[in-house]
Amino acid sequence: MTDTIKYILEENKLPKTWYNINPDLPSPPPPPLHPGRLDPLGPDDLAPLFPMGLIMQEVSMEREIEIPEPVREIYKQWRPSPLYRARRLEKFLDTPAKIYYKYEGVSPTGSHKPNTAVAQAFYNKEEGVKKIYTETGAGQWGSSLAFAGQIFGIDIEVFMVRVSFDQKPYRKIMMESFGAKCNPSPSEITNYGKKLLSEDPSNTGSLGIAISEAVEMAVQREDTKYALGSVLGHVLMHQTINGNEAILQMEQADDYPDIIVGCTGGGSNLSGLLFPFMGQQLRGGKKIEVIACEPLSCPSFTKGKYAYDFGDTGHVAPLLKMHTLGSTFIPPATHSGGLRYHGMSYHLSHLLELGLIRAKAYGQKECFAASVDFAKQEGILPAPEATHAVKGAIDAAIECKKNGESKTILFNLSGHGHFDMTAYSDYFDNKLGEDIFEEENVNKALADLPNVA
Amino acid sequence: MTDTIKYILEENKLPKTWYNINPDLPSPPPPPLHPGRLDPLGPDDLAPLFPMGLIMQEVSMEREIEIPEPVREIYKQWRPSPLYRARRLEKFLDTPAKIYYKYEGVSPTGSHKPNTAVAQAFYNKEEGVKKIYTETGAGQWGSSLAFAGQIFGIDIEVFMVRVSFDQKPYRKIMMESFGAKCNPSPSEITNYGKKLLSEDPSNTGSLGIAISEAVEMAVQREDTKYALGSVLGHVLMHQTINGNEAILQMEQADDYPDIIVGCTGGGSNLSGLLFPFMGQQLRGGKKIEVIACEPLSCPSFTKGKYAYDFGDTGHVAPLLKMHTLGSTFIPPATHSGGLRYHGMSYHLSHLLELGLIRAKAYGQKECFAASVDFAKQEGILPAPEATHAVKGAIDAAIECKKNGESKTILFNLSGHGHFDMTAYSDYFDNKLGEDIFEEENVNKALADLPNVA
Repeated sequence: MTDTIKYILEENKLPKTWYNINPDLPSPPPPPLHPGRLDPLGPDDLAPLFPMGLIMQEVSMEREIEIPEPVREIYKQWRPSPLYRARRLEKFLDTPAKIYYKYEGVSPTGSHKPNTAVAQAFYNKEEGVKKIYTETGAGQWGSSLAFAGQIFGIDIEVFMVRVSFDQKPYRKIMMESFGAKCNPSPSEITNYGKKLLSEDPSNTGSLGIAISEAVEMAVQREDTKYALGSVLGHVLMHQTINGNEAILQMEQADDYPDIIVGCTGGGSNLSGLLFPFMGQQLRGGKKIEVIACEPLSCPSFTKGKYAYDFGDTGHVAPLLKMHTLGSTFIPPATHSGGLRYHGMSYHLSHLLELGLIRAKAYGQKECFAASVDFAKQEGILPAPEATHAVKGAIDAAIECKKNGESKTILFNLSGHGHFDMTAYSDYFDNKLGEDIFEEENVNKALADLPNVA
Repeated sequence: MTDTIKYILEENKLPKTWYNINPDLPSPPPPPLHPGRLDPLGPDDLAPLFPMGLIMQEVSMEREIEIPEPVREIYKQWRPSPLYRARRLEKFLDTPAKIYYKYEGVSPTGSHKPNTAVAQAFYNKEEGVKKIYTETGAGQWGSSLAFAGQIFGIDIEVFMVRVSFDQKPYRKIMMESFGAKCNPSPSEITNYGKKLLSEDPSNTGSLGIAISEAVEMAVQREDTKYALGSVLGHVLMHQTINGNEAILQMEQADDYPDIIVGCTGGGSNLSGLLFPFMGQQLRGGKKIEVIACEPLSCPSFTKGKYAYDFGDTGHVAPLLKMHTLGSTFIPPATHSGGLRYHGMSYHLSHLLELGLIRAKAYGQKECFAASVDFAKQEGILPAPEATHAVKGAIDAAIECKKNGESKTILFNLSGHGHFDMTAYSDYFDNKLGEDIFEEENVNKALADLPNVA
């Protein structure tokens, strides 16, 4: 029997640094702008939102940034995460390709999100922060920050996109089990939420709205801050612990990726796996084909415009130059709550513009079909977000079969689907809706893009 | 900060054998009896139910039984499982005790059950079996056998206790994702199920009933067999991979348990961790205090009778000498579906009679309260079954505090609660019912005990 192989890494090999892609980029990404002034932000502009430790990481030009020892100690609860070679899946697909996946579902909350949640809670604690407000889509990020806040003794309050709040009640219970407060967004707690609900009481919410609510609360006191689960540079950097591990594990396997695949909502899980490899490429190493997989219903990379746009719908968060569907666009309700963001990491957008990565959009049904094939062979049910990466990887493997090429594919299985079984249930019962790209709404939202020189 | 410590074990240290307690017992446990003849079973009597490889394990007197290489290869997907020292929990409890837990939730289906599911599927495959019928309570076992069957290419059909089928729809979806068929039990498929439903259409089912249905189906063809997820000797033995690992991990920690705690339904998760340590004790090693934790509503150890009784409600399965509440007793519906069995492993029952272990019964609410404390410190939400072990371990640690004793407590965290979040929801919403011990129903069931000399 041909079996799946696990490459573990001894705990004493757990990387001691995060990788910062900034110094290796051929050109710097356009800087974030102030939401009022529309000019480049300084560290002081971000101080009401983030502790200075994180702000300095956002602009750092050091390639290796040391992981604080308390963060590493907590990482060790589940890290190094396993790298698998999916030989059962390869055999099932009858492909000459080699398929590897890094599995981040082993974390306490079942996804890659604690990699940055623990780091962010640490830096906030260091600077005396008492409470952090945040948003969450599917709840992966909210529950991860709840876990991290509990460990460091920081209160956490989460604004959860209403459609996911209703679809995924168990994520809310997990947040509460870790002592956090979780509100559906839009909420009656903030001025912005109240305004939106008065206009449309059935507003299903979006990550952009939830960010506005969390920011509104965070800036009201000096000892309260805001935290973001993706998109920003320091968040992506914390995720590179994953890619740094994967480099060592691919060495164990005596192999190196030709293709790297990840799903993209805000961009953090793909970046976490990719950037350390991309850094090697940018410093003269092997060229890797990179496929960012996004949902057909919220395709910022494949249908969005590369432009400066607000990070949130209420226009209180900084502007980023990114592929965007417009900050006022509310994506249709799908099960992949974590991918329902109008914009994209400004680092990944920059890489796309530089031709260093490419993007593909997939529909829900084809992603779940691929993931059920995957689950049957590998025993793991991917989270709805991660199904896009599974589909992308399987497509690449099938392409290899057509071309008779034995390429090495590495993808990030960013989380398990244990809290998303309604999605699998809907898939089996043929109740998953068609994927709709709401072109008219996107065009309307894009018409509202801020006018930045 | 005092942090939780993980003791991992290098993959090349994965034990090569299971431990068989039979040769080390001071006296053999009373043998299983034939359900018709009421005399000791021979291997041939079991042949319609199990492949001969498993039957011979049930009666083996070899101390170490080699794990077949294909089984070990599959184990490596998640094993060795981590052993944690819960230092954050110790600090929270302010106890001088040292609390360790072995975490079996890292398996593909989130519990210890694949340890035996993979082994059983392997031996069935070796002997040409095409289909296996089984029962499941909460669904942990059914989904694990579905996973194993998928890998070895064996069809799996599961009878799931109706109360759990309704409470936990996601486990059914998981089984279906792995290609298995899952029926609520009692069902309209078997003669026994039809009979029960005609008497009471609202019958919520029990493990004893589901076993009868699975056995009825299994014996109809030569190439179909039955599989049990707990109770029998070979099942418990497959679980000892866990205790064999734990012995090596406790050596890494330079420690040894004074107290071992586990929850008990049929007995397999406690046995898997305990037996290798108990073997050391029986061969002259250190005496360990063992606490079997069971639910107040189904307390076979603490309120049952030690007697020969049928393993199933329909009286088609063998009789075992065990602590039993009577084979016709249907336990009240609780969230701990995996602990709703009228009887107990005949090995554990024997150990209790020999005074080598003791038992404690706990109510649901106190178990969930303990587990929320645990989750806040350790980041893992235990399965409802495992909450009993958490409560038992925390109680032991509090006792250590009272007595100023720095004892070493080791417990088995047999699974995560990701598919049981309704139970946590009910706990938080104060909707968990009172734990009822239905003394009258038990007495009625015990009055029906078979008359065995």
